[in-house]
Order: sequence, then structure tokens, then C-alpha cells
Amino acid sequence: MRGVVLHAPRDVRVEQRPDPKIEQPTDAIIRVTASCVCGSDLWPYRGIEPVSQPAPMGHEYVGVVQEVGREVRTIKPGQFVIGSFWASDNTCEICRAGYQSSCVHRVLMGTIGTQAELARIPLADGTLVATPEVPGDDLVPSLLAASDVLGTGWFGAVAAEVQPGRTVVVVGDGAVGLLAILAARQLGAERIIAMSRHEPRQKLALEFGATDIVTERGDDGVATIKELTDGLGAHSVIEAVGTQESMLQAIQSARPGGHVGFVGVAHGVELPGEVLFSSAVHLHGGPAPVRRFLPELIQLISDQAIDPGRVFDLTVPLDQAADGYRAMDERRAIKTLLRP
Amino acid sequence: MRGVVLHAPRDVRVEQRPDPKIEQPTDAIIRVTASCVCGSDLWPYRGIEPVSQPAPMGHEYVGVVQEVGREVRTIKPGQFVIGSFWASDNTCEICRAGYQSSCVHRVLMGTIGTQAELARIPLADGTLVATPEVPGDDLVPSLLAASDVLGTGWFGAVAAEVQPGRTVVVVGDGAVGLLAILAARQLGAERIIAMSRHEPRQKLALEFGATDIVTERGDDGVATIKELTDGLGAHSVIEAVGTQESMLQAIQSARPGGHVGFVGVAHGVELPGEVLFSSAVHLHGGPAPVRRFLPELIQLISDQAIDPGRVFDLTVPLDQAADGYRAMDERRAIKTLLRP
Repeated sequence: MRGVVLHAPRDVRVEQRPDPKIEQPTDAIIRVTASCVCGSDLWPYRGIEPVSQPAPMGHEYVGVVQEVGREVRTIKPGQFVIGSFWASDNTCEICRAGYQSSCVHRVLMGTIGTQAELARIPLADGTLVATPEVPGDDLVPSLLAASDVLGTGWFGAVAAEVQPGRTVVVVGDGAVGLLAILAARQLGAERIIAMSRHEPRQKLALEFGATDIVTERGDDGVATIKELTDGLGAHSVIEAVGTQESMLQAIQSARPGGHVGFVGVAHGVELPGEVLFSSAVHLHGGPAPVRRFLPELIQLISDQAIDPGRVFDLTVPLDQAADGYRAMDERRAIKTLLRP
Repeated sequence: MRGVVLHAPRDVRVEQRPDPKIEQPTDAIIRVTASCVCGSDLWPYRGIEPVSQPAPMGHEYVGVVQEVGREVRTIKPGQFVIGSFWASDNTCEICRAGYQSSCVHRVLMGTIGTQAELARIPLADGTLVATPEVPGDDLVPSLLAASDVLGTGWFGAVAAEVQPGRTVVVVGDGAVGLLAILAARQLGAERIIAMSRHEPRQKLALEFGATDIVTERGDDGVATIKELTDGLGAHSVIEAVGTQESMLQAIQSARPGGHVGFVGVAHGVELPGEVLFSSAVHLHGGPAPVRRFLPELIQLISDQAIDPGRVFDLTVPLDQAADGYRAMDERRAIKTLLRP
């Protein structure tokens, strides 16, 4: 089969790789209908995370089950399925508490690589959620978004305790930030302030439900948020970047007793304890337990209540994956969908 | 009147100071029945926080109201009252959400100094809670504990979402940590693991409700907590120290999705974002909104359901405050009560 391999920073190749096989009796093999490039794939692409050896890429996927191991009970060949970036058993105590991304038996999909024609999915019964029937092609982008960026933005909003009547700030206008806006709208937020300085993204932010746009960053951004919230700060802040600046901006934009949900993968962040202490905020985040939200998100997408697939503003065949990476790196695309 | 003044590290003096007067129409003047030395007073005492000029000390207090300003409505002369370390209006939006320690009109009592015969209490109606009648002398230590260390330990337990059936770890065996154990017991925790290496404090921890004692610290301490919790970590962890080591120990002792309540005043803490992200814990803390809990705590003390005053293992007359500081600094006393 063909699959994307990152050989070195900015060296993305689509190569012939061995077809995956059932390795554990709980595995499934899926034929990938669509995959995509994640903002987090740009960390190694840009050389910020080291690339020590050729690495299969991709951890977002929807597809059709081809084969299952002998201990797989609920997932069947022919089903259209959605999974996420951590495979999880969905039965351990941590999974049952809703933290499937920290499952005691978890397997990182990124080491398997779903930007490919086929993919092996460990712990298939726990990891995959099947749609009632094979969906129309028009729903594929939105279902693919549920696999990571929607699920992650949704977790950010839940972690930030977004509720009806609340004022919400979203730091970051990548696909996750934009879908956090959509999530906040669905969860009933009254006011949603998007911090964005990119015109096309501001437009999508407003379409997803943002009520205000703030273009300032850092201390100026915080000052503007305070002005917009009677000097108090927001009830809920969703952080979707992962840098020192964005984390401090998020914490300082929240009111005392407010909630910060952070889902940007942290890179080089050192939070001063004094700032955290005096802010008196709630802080929760980490790798999103997307599996927790998949059934609800699939339902909303099937009902056409939400259209998160709009974050894909570039679709390329798998063979042109390198172009898709480049467009995201140069911020010409918000998110690239890959069709094997 | 006489009051405690810190002139330089380890230079505690009891001096004649001007009697406090009503400065704002919302002030009250109280005659201090009892005050005490706080763990946080040891930071400047030890020179870890600078002492740039002679500083009146103390922010914990119970006393009898002597005089009130013309806008004070609910607090009356003759009442026995308890307040806390932030004066707060208890009416602003932040107070109403339960974060009185971040009140938009807050005044820090530590700048006023309650280790004295008299004290001015700003925002008296919002800050002070009166007991139904003047309590017996035997209840004074426990009511004084409610003013800070009990209220702070209680907030730590609430911030850590202690609930019936949960396993709770308490990092720190000072007065706040010990009273966090008492709080966790009251809030229904099933198992309470105290991290302590001081024999007399272990004893009090067990009397307050700890079920297990762990003497190891740092990585070894975390490993022991994991062993005691099926490899998962605790549901709730209360951090009551404020150092880098104690914060990391707390975060790493919690299970994914667990809750860390931190109430140790942070000194030199830099939390690595990657550790926080991968831990997937909830983190909440800061200056305890003691005012939120005072009515409930006063009731529990009046009913003799709890006896938090036992953390005071040294009582000295105000004039001997320097001895009281020294005993705490040298860890000969857990907490010193001062009688004016």
C-alpha cells in the first residue's frame, strides 16, 4: 500500500509500505476513506520535534473495516468507522471515567500512520465507533474532523466548562480553535470571543458562532478581553495553540474562579506558579479523550446540525501529501484532507 | 495598642502602635481575642520574601466588634466575629461566584496586621461572620483556625473535588495539610493518604482521618502512591506546600482526569507544560476564598463535629510572639496561637 513517510524536516514522501496485518487478536484493519494533516504534524515537519528516522505519519482517519482479529466483538467488516489518535480499550477505570486518551492500554496511532491506504487499528472494539450506515461522501469531511480536531476543540470547550449564558474566549484560530468555537456555540455559550488576526479564519470563526473578534495578542489581547468583560475576564477560555504566550494569554483572560481548557500540545511552556496561584482559575486539558465524545459528535454530524468539515479548505490525493503539508506550513490552508 | 512588627528576617518585635480608627464608613474595629502565626509569615521571617520596611504582621483573627462605620449594616458592636485574610465585599460578581479572595474590592489583611490588640477590618459586612453568641473560650482555637488554615485546607479539598468514595493524597503536613485531611474526612473520602515524615504530625494526621502515611518524597513518593492505587494515581490530591517539588509530586500523584487542589503559596514554581498536558489532571487553587466556607465551618465547630484548633500546639501571650515565630521556624511547633 501507499503511505506518507516523513524522512526529515520538510521531506514528506508517499511510499510503498507493507500492508498492515492483524498483529493482536483485538486489532482491525481498515481501508482509509480519508485522512488529513494535523497541526501537530507540523512540529516534526518544521523540525521543532526531532525526526530521528523515517516516520509514518497521520493519526486522523475514517474508513471501512476490512478485517478484524478473533477477539473483536462489536466491530464488523464492512462498517464505516471513526477512531481517534489514541487507541483505547474503553473498559479500564480511566476510560470509564472518560479519559480514554490516558487508557492504561493505550496505543498511539501516530506511530502507526493513518495517512495511508490501509491502517491497523489496535483495540478495535474500544477505539472505533461505527456509523449506523455507510455515510454519503458529503459527510466524510465532517466525520473525519470528529476524529481529532472537532473532538479536541469539543474537549477544550468541555474542559473550560462552557455552559449556557457564559462568555468564552478562544485563543488560537487553527482548525482546533475554530471548532472549539463551534463546540462553544453548541454548548450554549452566550458570547464567544475569537482571538484571531487572519482574515479568512476570522470569517470562518464568525460562521461557526463567534460573536467578537480580538486581533491583539499577549498583554494587549488580555487588556481587550478585560475591557469586553467588565474588567473581570471571561468565564471560560479555550487554549488551542500550546505556546508559552498562548497559555499565559488564556490564563490571564479568565476571571478568578473561571475555567481554562487547554488542548494545544504544549511546546516549551513553563507556567509560573505565582501567576497560576494568583489567577485562581481552573486549569484542565491535555490529549483530548475524543472517544468520549464520538457517539454524540457522529449524531450531530449525521443530523447535519453541525458542519465541522468546513475546516478542510484543501483536499489533495494522498500522492500529493507533500503539497498538503506545505500549504498548511505556509498558512495557505487551515487544514488539508488527503484522499487515498 | 501593642502589635507585632517584623523589622528584618528573624527580628520580630511587639511594639506600641497607634490604635486603629474607622477610615472608611464600611470599616469595623475589633478587639482581637486570638490571632496566630501563619506558615506564610515564615517566608518573610526567613528572608525568602524581602522585608524592605518594618511590617505589621498577621492576617488570622477572631475578636469582638468594638465600633463600626456608618455604612456597616449587619455587623454590630459586641458580636464575636471571624474574618479571613482578604477583606471582601461579598456582593460583587466574583464574590457571588464564591471567589471572595479575588473580590474586585478586596483588601489584604496582612498589610493591616492582626497580631495585635485591635484591628481594623475593611468591608466589615462582607468580610466578617458573627457567631450566634459569644463562644466559650474552649472554642476559640477552632474558630481561629477557620480564619485561615482550616478554610484553606477545606478549599484545597473542595478544589480537589474530594467526594465520598474517593482516594485522596495530601502533600504537606503543616497546619493546612493536616486540616485538609480533616476536610477530606468530612467530605467523605474513603482513603486519605498523608505524605509526611514527621512523627508528631503523622499522629495528628491519623487522628484527623488519614488512613495511610507515606514518608517518601518526590519520585519515590509518587511511585508509592501509584503502588497504593493500582498503578493509577489518586482521584484527588491536595497540595499544601507551594514548592516546585511539592507541585510536581501532587500532579504526578493524581490519575488522568483526577483533580489537584493547590493551596500552598507558590514560591519559585515553574510548571513544565508538557508534564501538565500529559498528566491530564484538573488543576485548581490559589488564595482560598475562606469567606465562602465560614458559615459552614463555624456551624461544624459550634456543633463540636470538628476540632481543628488542635493544630495549635503552642499558645503564647502576644508579648512573646518572637518565641512563637521561632518555635514554628524550628518546626518545634505546628502552629502558634497568640493571646493579646
